[in-house]
Amino acid sequence: MDFQKVIAFATRRGLFQPAFGAYGGLAGFLDYGPVGVKLRRRILEVWRRHYVIDAGCLELDGALIGPEVLFKASGHLGEFDDPLVNCDDCGKQFRADHLIEDGEEMARDKLANALSRTACPNCGAGLSEMTAFNLMFSTKVGAGKGLQGYLRPETAQSIFLAFPWLLRQNRGKLPFAVGQIGRSFRNEISARQGPLRMREFTAMEVEHFFLPDNEPQLSDDLSKVTITLLNSAGKEITCSVGEAHSDGTVNSSLVACHLARAQLFFTDIGVPKNKLRFRQHGSNEMAHYSSDCWDGEIDTSLGWVEVVGVAHRGDYDLSAHGNASSKEFRVAVPGTGKETEIWVPDIGKLGKEFKSDAKIILEAIKDIELQPGILVEVNGDKVELTSEYMSQKTERRSEMVYANVVEPAFGLDRILYCLLESSWKSDGEREWISLPQETSPYDLLVAPLMTKDNLDIKAHEIMKAATKINIDAYYDEAGSIGRRYARADEIGIFYSMTIDHQTLEDGTVTLRERDSKDQNRLSIDDALNKVRR
Amino acid sequence: MDFQKVIAFATRRGLFQPAFGAYGGLAGFLDYGPVGVKLRRRILEVWRRHYVIDAGCLELDGALIGPEVLFKASGHLGEFDDPLVNCDDCGKQFRADHLIEDGEEMARDKLANALSRTACPNCGAGLSEMTAFNLMFSTKVGAGKGLQGYLRPETAQSIFLAFPWLLRQNRGKLPFAVGQIGRSFRNEISARQGPLRMREFTAMEVEHFFLPDNEPQLSDDLSKVTITLLNSAGKEITCSVGEAHSDGTVNSSLVACHLARAQLFFTDIGVPKNKLRFRQHGSNEMAHYSSDCWDGEIDTSLGWVEVVGVAHRGDYDLSAHGNASSKEFRVAVPGTGKETEIWVPDIGKLGKEFKSDAKIILEAIKDIELQPGILVEVNGDKVELTSEYMSQKTERRSEMVYANVVEPAFGLDRILYCLLESSWKSDGEREWISLPQETSPYDLLVAPLMTKDNLDIKAHEIMKAATKINIDAYYDEAGSIGRRYARADEIGIFYSMTIDHQTLEDGTVTLRERDSKDQNRLSIDDALNKVRR
Repeated sequence: MDFQKVIAFATRRGLFQPAFGAYGGLAGFLDYGPVGVKLRRRILEVWRRHYVIDAGCLELDGALIGPEVLFKASGHLGEFDDPLVNCDDCGKQFRADHLIEDGEEMARDKLANALSRTACPNCGAGLSEMTAFNLMFSTKVGAGKGLQGYLRPETAQSIFLAFPWLLRQNRGKLPFAVGQIGRSFRNEISARQGPLRMREFTAMEVEHFFLPDNEPQLSDDLSKVTITLLNSAGKEITCSVGEAHSDGTVNSSLVACHLARAQLFFTDIGVPKNKLRFRQHGSNEMAHYSSDCWDGEIDTSLGWVEVVGVAHRGDYDLSAHGNASSKEFRVAVPGTGKETEIWVPDIGKLGKEFKSDAKIILEAIKDIELQPGILVEVNGDKVELTSEYMSQKTERRSEMVYANVVEPAFGLDRILYCLLESSWKSDGEREWISLPQETSPYDLLVAPLMTKDNLDIKAHEIMKAATKINIDAYYDEAGSIGRRYARADEIGIFYSMTIDHQTLEDGTVTLRERDSKDQNRLSIDDALNKVRR
Repeated sequence: MDFQKVIAFATRRGLFQPAFGAYGGLAGFLDYGPVGVKLRRRILEVWRRHYVIDAGCLELDGALIGPEVLFKASGHLGEFDDPLVNCDDCGKQFRADHLIEDGEEMARDKLANALSRTACPNCGAGLSEMTAFNLMFSTKVGAGKGLQGYLRPETAQSIFLAFPWLLRQNRGKLPFAVGQIGRSFRNEISARQGPLRMREFTAMEVEHFFLPDNEPQLSDDLSKVTITLLNSAGKEITCSVGEAHSDGTVNSSLVACHLARAQLFFTDIGVPKNKLRFRQHGSNEMAHYSSDCWDGEIDTSLGWVEVVGVAHRGDYDLSAHGNASSKEFRVAVPGTGKETEIWVPDIGKLGKEFKSDAKIILEAIKDIELQPGILVEVNGDKVELTSEYMSQKTERRSEMVYANVVEPAFGLDRILYCLLESSWKSDGEREWISLPQETSPYDLLVAPLMTKDNLDIKAHEIMKAATKINIDAYYDEAGSIGRRYARADEIGIFYSMTIDHQTLEDGTVTLRERDSKDQNRLSIDDALNKVRR
C-alpha cells in the first residue's frame, strides 16, 4: 500500500481519520477509531512486555502541561524551533528549511543566505526575513492573566523532573530505567494529514539512568541480536550488536543495548527485518544535548521513516534541572570524592574525662563538622573540646554526581502507519494485513453461517466464552461467509470461526487461519484454546 | 486514611506526587509513579472489560486540542465557566461561588448580589465585579498568529464529532455505544493539590447512542443489580435497578442500565457497596444539555466524592454539531416520515410505447423526483413524459432524526483516590491496601529468604517464569522477610512468594496471601498457577 491507499483504507475501516473533518479539518490531528485503538493497544502491550516487564522499567505518567520555568531549563524555550518565513504578498507561511534543497541539514545562517535568493513558491514574490518559530503549544494556567505554560514537546522532561522521586522509589540505586507512554505536542509549521508529521502524537520513551563510570554492559542475549546499521559516514553493515559495539561502530554499551532491544521490539510487532535499519546522526543533525544518536527507520513507499531515536543525552537534562531548580538532582556516590582530613572524637578519652556525660557530648556533635575548640553544652555548662579529645583521619567522602542517560524514544503513530504498509498483502484474490497474532487488532472472528436455526444464538454463546478468556473477538453475521472472511482479513483478524449446523450436533466449529487460509474442524474448546494467546 | 495520609503515602510509595515540585509546583497537576501507573492500568483493564468487552462499546481515541468552532458549537465557549472575583487591594483571585454558602447552587445574579455584601477573605477589602472565567485552556495552532484552539474539557466532544464516521463503522445501525479513555483539561480557578480537583485529568466516557423511540431496555442481569439511590427530592432508597426503573425513580431505561453497570464496575474494582450511592441532580445543578443526571459518589473522609456522572444528554450535542457544521449528523429512519404523494413510472405503458428504449428512460429517471411533463433524452431526442406514463402513490419516506445519547463519564484520578481510602486497612500490627487481585498493583512479591546460597538466582528464575505468564511480579531482596511483607502489604501486592533452602531441595515455595496472611507450601508451578489471573 502507498500513502494514499493507507489513508483511504484507514478511514474506511475505522483505523483513523483526520480529526475535525466536519469543521474543515485541522492538519496534524487524528481520531483513532475502533480498529485503530485496538491496534495501538496491541503495539503498546508488546512494548510494555519488552520494556516494563523484561527490561524492568519503572513507569511514570506525567502531566502534559508544564510551567515555563521547566522548559526554560530544559532548553526547549530557547532552542526548540523551526525556521519560518512568510510571504509578504500572499501571506502564506513556510518552513524555511523545506524551501531549500538539503535545508534541514543547513546551519541557520547558511539557510538565511540561501533564502534571500528564493522566491515564494506560491506567488513568486519575495520572502520575509527568516524567524525562529518555537514549536511548543503555549497556554495560560489559572485565572486572570494566568501563569505561562506549555504543552510538553517530549514526554522525557516529565521523567527528568521526577528523577529524585523515582530514584527514591528505586531505593537510591542506579542504574535504573523509567518508561512512559503518553501524548506529546509539536506545533509544526507544515503539519501533514496522516500519522507522519503530527502536531499531537503518542510517544513511548525510556530514560535509562546510570553512573558515568558504571555504564550497563551488553548482555549475552542482546549482543547476539543481528541488526543493520548505517553509520554517520554512510557505511551500511549488518552484524551482531556485540560486534558493532566491540568494533566501535556503536561506542556506548548502553546505546548498543537499546539498539538491540528496539530491533527485537520491531520484529516482534511484525516489521520485516529487511525493512528496518538504524541510521547514525551526523554532527549537524544531532540535538544539542546528544553525544550519539541513532534513528531506527522503516522502509516505506515514502522512503525511510524514523520510528525511534536512541540518543545518549549525557547529563544534559539532569544537570539543567539541578542548576535551575531548588532540588538536588545529583546522586551521592560513596567513596569517590577526593581525600579530606577530618577530626573524629576520641571516645576513650572522652569517656575517661566526662564519664556518663560523654554520651551527651557524642550526641551533641553527631551531625556537625568537628573542629578543635568547639563548645558543647553539657547539663547547662559550656564545655570546650580541645584537640586532645580528637584524632585526625583521612576520608574519601561521597561525591555528588549527575547520572547519565540513554534514551530510546518511539513514536506510536508512525509505527502504526509503517506497520500497516509493511504488513499489507495481496494475492489478486484478496487483500489482507499479515500481522503476528500479538499485534492483530482482533484474535478471532465469530461468524454463524446463517442467522436462523439458532446458529446466531450459539455464536453469541461462543463470543461470551471467548471474551471470558481474554480473546479479543469480533462478531459478524452480515453477508456471505466469504464476504465476512474478506472483511476480517482486510483488518487483520487472526482467526475466523464459523458456526454451522454441525456445531449444534457435535459441538465442532471450523477454525480458519488468516494467512494460510487453512481450515480445521475442531471442538469449540480446542478452537478457543488455540486462539487464546 | 484521611486526605493528608493518602497524599503522604502516595508520595512515599510512588503512587503519585504533585507535579513540578522542583520548580515550586503547579496546583492541579500530578505525576503518577511506578505503583500509581500500575494501579491506574488495572482499574482501566476492569473498565474495558465492563464497557468494551461486555457492553461491546466501539473505542475512540480523539485529539486533545480542538478548533474554536467546535467548542462554539458544543456550548463550551459560551457556557463552560466559573464565576470569578478579584480583590482590588491584595490582588487575590477567588471562585465566587466558593465564598458564599451554598454558592455553587445559586443562580449567577443571586450570587453577584450576595457577593456585593462580601469582603475579601484574605485582606478584608472590597471585591471586584464578578466575571465569568472560561475553564478551557486556550492555545494557538500553527505558525504566525495561528488558529484559536482549546484543550478539550471533556472527551465526549471527540465522540460526538466522530459520530458519522463511527456510525459507518457500525454499518449504519443503532443503538451503539462508543467508549473513550483519555486526558481532559479544566483550568480550575482554585485547583487543589491531590487528585480531587485537577486541571488535567483522565476520563473514561461512554456515549450510548439510540433512536428516541427505540431506547435500549434493561436486561434481566442489569435489572437485578442492587443499588442505593438518593433522588433529587432527597429520598434515599436501596433497591434493585429494575424496581427503581419501574417505580419511576429512574425514568430512562438506558440511564437505569448505566447506573447498574457503574455499580457493577465500582464493586468489581473493590469499592465497598456501603460506601457507594447514586445521587440525582436537582434542576439547578443539572448541565444545560441534560434532562436527567445521576452522580455516582463514594463516601470518603472528605465527604461524598463524585466519581461518575450518568447523564441523559438527549440530542443536544449531535444537533449542535449538525447545525453548526457541514456534515450530516442525523440518521435516516425508514418509514417514519410523513405521508407524501409521489409519482412513479408506469413500466407497462412505457414498455408498450417505447419498446427497448424504455430501459434508457427508466435509467435516466432513476434518481430524480418524477413529475409529469419531465423531458428525457433518448438517443439524442428529447421525449416528454406526460402523466399517462406515471401513476400516483402514497409513500412514507425516511425521516432524518438525531440520535439521543446517555453518557456515563468516569474520572480515573478521583476513583483511584477513593479506592485508596476505602481499601486501606490497619490492625495495629500492619497497614495494608485490601484490593481484589484484579486491581492490586502487583500480583506477586518474589522474595528470596537471603541473597546467598543461590537463593537469589532461583528467585530471579521464578520472576522470569512468572512474567512469562503475565503475572505482574515485584522482586525484593532487601531487609528481613517480615519487613518485605510489610512493604508489599502497604502497596497492596496480592501474594508473596518466599524462596528458601527447601526450594532448592524440593522445588517448593511459601505462598502468602495478603489479606488473610495464610501461608501455604506449594510447588513452584502450583504457586504460579494460583497467582495467575
